[in-house]
Amino acid sequence: MTASAPASTARTELFSDGVFAIVITLLAVEIHRPEVEPGGLAHALIEGWPGYLAYLLGFLYVGVIWLNHYGLFRHLRGIDRTFNWINLGVLGTTVLMPFATGVLATSFETGNRHDQQSAVVAYALIAGAMSAAWIPVFAYLRRHPELLRSPDVVSVLSAQRVRPLVGVTLFALAALLGWFVHPLIAIAVFVVMLLYHAWTSEGIAAIRATPEPQP
Amino acid sequence: MTASAPASTARTELFSDGVFAIVITLLAVEIHRPEVEPGGLAHALIEGWPGYLAYLLGFLYVGVIWLNHYGLFRHLRGIDRTFNWINLGVLGTTVLMPFATGVLATSFETGNRHDQQSAVVAYALIAGAMSAAWIPVFAYLRRHPELLRSPDVVSVLSAQRVRPLVGVTLFALAALLGWFVHPLIAIAVFVVMLLYHAWTSEGIAAIRATPEPQP
Amino acid sequence: MTASAPASTARTELFSDGVFAIVITLLAVEIHRPEVEPGGLAHALIEGWPGYLAYLLGFLYVGVIWLNHYGLFRHLRGIDRTFNWINLGVLGTTVLMPFATGVLATSFETGNRHDQQSAVVAYALIAGAMSAAWIPVFAYLRRHPELLRSPDVVSVLSAQRVRPLVGVTLFALAALLGWFVHPLIAIAVFVVMLLYHAWTSEGIAAIRATPEPQP
Amino acid sequence: MTASAPASTARTELFSDGVFAIVITLLAVEIHRPEVEPGGLAHALIEGWPGYLAYLLGFLYVGVIWLNHYGLFRHLRGIDRTFNWINLGVLGTTVLMPFATGVLATSFETGNRHDQQSAVVAYALIAGAMSAAWIPVFAYLRRHPELLRSPDVVSVLSAQRVRPLVGVTLFALAALLGWFVHPLIAIAVFVVMLLYHAWTSEGIAAIRATPEPQP
Repeated sequence: MTASAPASTARTELFSDGVFAIVITLLAVEIHRPEVEPGGLAHALIEGWPGYLAYLLGFLYVGVIWLNHYGLFRHLRGIDRTFNWINLGVLGTTVLMPFATGVLATSFETGNRHDQQSAVVAYALIAGAMSAAWIPVFAYLRRHPELLRSPDVVSVLSAQRVRPLVGVTLFALAALLGWFVHPLIAIAVFVVMLLYHAWTSEGIAAIRATPEPQP
Repeated sequence: MTASAPASTARTELFSDGVFAIVITLLAVEIHRPEVEPGGLAHALIEGWPGYLAYLLGFLYVGVIWLNHYGLFRHLRGIDRTFNWINLGVLGTTVLMPFATGVLATSFETGNRHDQQSAVVAYALIAGAMSAAWIPVFAYLRRHPELLRSPDVVSVLSAQRVRPLVGVTLFALAALLGWFVHPLIAIAVFVVMLLYHAWTSEGIAAIRATPEPQP
Repeated sequence: MTASAPASTARTELFSDGVFAIVITLLAVEIHRPEVEPGGLAHALIEGWPGYLAYLLGFLYVGVIWLNHYGLFRHLRGIDRTFNWINLGVLGTTVLMPFATGVLATSFETGNRHDQQSAVVAYALIAGAMSAAWIPVFAYLRRHPELLRSPDVVSVLSAQRVRPLVGVTLFALAALLGWFVHPLIAIAVFVVMLLYHAWTSEGIAAIRATPEPQP
Repeated sequence: MTASAPASTARTELFSDGVFAIVITLLAVEIHRPEVEPGGLAHALIEGWPGYLAYLLGFLYVGVIWLNHYGLFRHLRGIDRTFNWINLGVLGTTVLMPFATGVLATSFETGNRHDQQSAVVAYALIAGAMSAAWIPVFAYLRRHPELLRSPDVVSVLSAQRVRPLVGVTLFALAALLGWFVHPLIAIAVFVVMLLYHAWTSEGIAAIRATPEPQP
């Protein structure tokens, strides 16, 4: 496959933003309208608290991914076919988030301890896959500086490469701790990872100081 | 965190419009196709009127929010990371509207008085959160005039700051009245707040007379 | 309310296309995955034919509306607040199409004759509302030529004004005939109206011969 | 119908990307959150493997279609009304993919051999329709070179014409083999066709070497 001239990123951003917008909205749809006997709504709404927390966690997670995606694409001046496949990997793991969120919420609403262990393992596997999907992003861009707006970005992206590796490792750890020790430990790791991704995405943001070509 | 050069608002608008489009469509999906015994469809369709009214209320609500969002972004010449987080807050509360609408409709279709009280409280809490999410929008833009197309906008935006505060206050009041007095009072407040937001969004529109740079 | 300078149509098109895309996709989601006992899938899939036809009808309907919307917006050089509200009316009725389609399909899958009568009336009311939502579109543009790219468009749009009126009338007729005579007559009218809208939208297309400003 | 000047492809791409984004996300929604007795979640999540594989197959399928659509539109300098209808055909068959995927997954989760036969036939019919929808794409563009950015593209597109024909033929074969021999043979054909489409879409990509006008 010979390298073809990089294409505009416009349509990939359009498609990706469509996917992110739907995922972030479906997270709220996972908060099911309770079906109760007359008089039971108040109780059912209060019982639904794990769903609300799971929505909040999922929303922030997808929000951080969107911010990272958005921050990354600001540095791209073009895109090629391989990178489009890599981007599909990022999207294809992100769309699993509403499923993971729903499973997690249900296990704390109506499941027992064993269900909660299973749910945090499922959530950790999906979140780990979401992290893993970012590994080729940075690896590929480092080898294809022609896709970047500025060669200076390469060094910063290299520094970013560690993030998905940390993600994969810690989500694997969360799965183990959640299964063998206590599911709440896994949830604590999920919150920590959320903060970590929110904070380290500043790394991408920092490059923005570089004067960029006017669109 | 050093201030970085404001980025184009294009992708944030793209993402936000995706979310608004999905939310406004999901409101209609909350009108469930009735599942009835043969011969019972006409009756079930007529019984569904609270769902139709709830859809109408929710649609107008999200429509007004979209018009406000659209009106606001016309004054922005750029966006930064913090404002993107603030925008995520606006989106993250708006996506709860179909849930609130569904709960409200169900409580009037099949619930008793107590369920209707619970539903209007839930609706008021979510609508109040949607109002609260706009508080930082105006506060942040006032402190960051570099994101605005024209410094004249600052004074108008300052005048807009009162709107989300009114929203939070009145939705809190609606929750109290709906719970302790009668759920229909809360619904009356929801309708009044809808009209208030539709009317006061003219305030944002008014600035449009300002000649704006050609895109 | 003083007339403000017309704004770019870009974001309204973005938002509308998001809504149309979701509606046209949700029509397919209304084709429920059959839930059957082992061995019953083939039979259930064949029994689902009313759903497939309803999907086809709904898809073509929304497709025609999208083509009309797209054809119309090509003639607009700007948009104002009132027209945005009118556009919300078009969207707010269109999003009801999956519900109408689902009700129609269900009534022919599992309902009796009375259910089918109810379903075609519901469908006719929603389709009639979708037509009615286009009445202000043409009326408003005729009075606001400043929103049009070329004054020549006014006369063509005037000729278009009759279409939604025909739609409202014939869908009302379909409701009456479907209820009092036979539901299949109503469905025949729906198909005729689909062809009528597909054919008359050529009227909008015809103006395209007018040389238009390069974007 | 006289040929009108080709219009910008922008809005058709916007609408199409919205549809693709929703379809690819709904595939994940077809992975239902399991509803189980307390303690049964782990087992149910493991039992759900056909759903995960079906999601993966469906996601890759729609991803390849998106890449082909994206690759094709890069060669278009304009679009006309007929091509918009052809594009609606591509979208209208693609949106059936989540239904086909769900039916396939269910038949392997809870159905018997006869259900699996029915499901692969349904899947093959829908995938065949998706292929058939591309036949007019290439046929029409060959007769309308004014829609293309470069006349050189015609010869390459002519070579592409065979792909949907191969698709229709092989999906028909898959339906026959899956029904009369074994459902897993059909699934093997689906995987082969996925690889075939991913590989042959390189054909479209290859033209990219042609210098293209700067956007």
